[in-house]
Amino acid sequence: MQPKLTLVGAGPGDGELITLKGIRTLRQADVVLYDDLANATLLEFAPEQSLKLYVGKRAGKASFTQDEINELIIRLAQEHGHVVRLKGGDPYVFGRGFEEYDYARQYGICCEVVPGVSSSIAVAASQGIPVTSRGVSESFWVITGTTRHGELADDMRLAVQSKATVVVLMGMSKLSEICAMYCQAGRGYMPMAVIQNGTRADEQCVVGQVWNIPQLVAEQGVGAPAVLIIGEVVSLHPSYVAECLRNAGVAI
Amino acid sequence: MQPKLTLVGAGPGDGELITLKGIRTLRQADVVLYDDLANATLLEFAPEQSLKLYVGKRAGKASFTQDEINELIIRLAQEHGHVVRLKGGDPYVFGRGFEEYDYARQYGICCEVVPGVSSSIAVAASQGIPVTSRGVSESFWVITGTTRHGELADDMRLAVQSKATVVVLMGMSKLSEICAMYCQAGRGYMPMAVIQNGTRADEQCVVGQVWNIPQLVAEQGVGAPAVLIIGEVVSLHPSYVAECLRNAGVAI
Repeated sequence: MQPKLTLVGAGPGDGELITLKGIRTLRQADVVLYDDLANATLLEFAPEQSLKLYVGKRAGKASFTQDEINELIIRLAQEHGHVVRLKGGDPYVFGRGFEEYDYARQYGICCEVVPGVSSSIAVAASQGIPVTSRGVSESFWVITGTTRHGELADDMRLAVQSKATVVVLMGMSKLSEICAMYCQAGRGYMPMAVIQNGTRADEQCVVGQVWNIPQLVAEQGVGAPAVLIIGEVVSLHPSYVAECLRNAGVAI
Repeated sequence: MQPKLTLVGAGPGDGELITLKGIRTLRQADVVLYDDLANATLLEFAPEQSLKLYVGKRAGKASFTQDEINELIIRLAQEHGHVVRLKGGDPYVFGRGFEEYDYARQYGICCEVVPGVSSSIAVAASQGIPVTSRGVSESFWVITGTTRHGELADDMRLAVQSKATVVVLMGMSKLSEICAMYCQAGRGYMPMAVIQNGTRADEQCVVGQVWNIPQLVAEQGVGAPAVLIIGEVVSLHPSYVAECLRNAGVAI
């Protein structure tokens, strides 16, 4: 029995957005450690006798600390063999995938990574918003709303000035702060979308301009987990113009 | 017969990095229009009798202009039914996917998008480089090296100052220009990687610091298509330290 760790990207939510390689890896799992963002239907690809353990957060409460997850990976790989760490989106887009990889490698455990479809790109697409579009946006910048110290990333200040499509993951608790930064920089008019549960059946989306997004989100009861998208490309959303008119009080 | 267009992300090169949804869509194709970056083995998922047409660039020469591709989509959808536009990586990360979607929609053709694993994230991962890592990088910024007018994106100037992991796609022809910008900003010491044919069997990687990357790339004969990655996370590459020592003339 060879201890092994494979980080697998589960994709953004829709269970069909996992890769062939991800499924092949799940089929070879002795253990699956999964979190909330990974679609639960994917567990069915793992062998029936494999150990499946939930290590995510429920109602904001972590079932295991990161240190405990790292230790679990080592112990379960040594005891059972192949541990598949199934993570929402892509394993290396936030979510601490590299820390798990690096920790296991220090124990001499063979490690692999199977990339996934990232929410940072696919969630916008599921609402008809391309993160890039020739002549509209030549770049996109993906930023975490929750750094190690619980603050907004420093780069948010630079992002506000850029022409990039700005995508913020895990940023709902910083929504007012982010919107205020844009308004202070004179860019409160920028098109913005907030998408909860992107690519899932219960996906919800609010589209507007930065200045009125916090109010719209509150009115429509949209919450975490959500992706924030700010940039000209949001104006390509099929109902952007109608929403702006409605928010301006124009009967449509 | 219902005319339809589905943009499908083929993933970064490895044929197993397409999604289940991508394969299901290919199986329902009447026509597949594909380009270079899409792995040719994926065409085998399309029905044998479906029309498969190459619309990419070979040796820098486009087989069809973008306008011609747009027209082809309309004509083939109207004549044959379901056109699958198979694009390397993700359909909305550069590559003009939205233009095709938008054009077809204007003709009343039903359009869908199946996102894919983007090279902007997965190619770094295949070399052991995470685009984000807690405490090292809180964001990543994906920029095209080739804008509409053939110039570097304006935002490159801002990217050089940021703490983001900067990922440049289609940037090989601008390599010296990009490296010079970092050096002029006093950041020539930044870790940088250039990865050709990422996730394919013939993947090639050069790792170093911005100041000496153009020389290393020339010496090692690495060329397009390649992904450029600049940021502290590149120092996590398993051979980064050894490469830096070697480039400094230290015997190892």
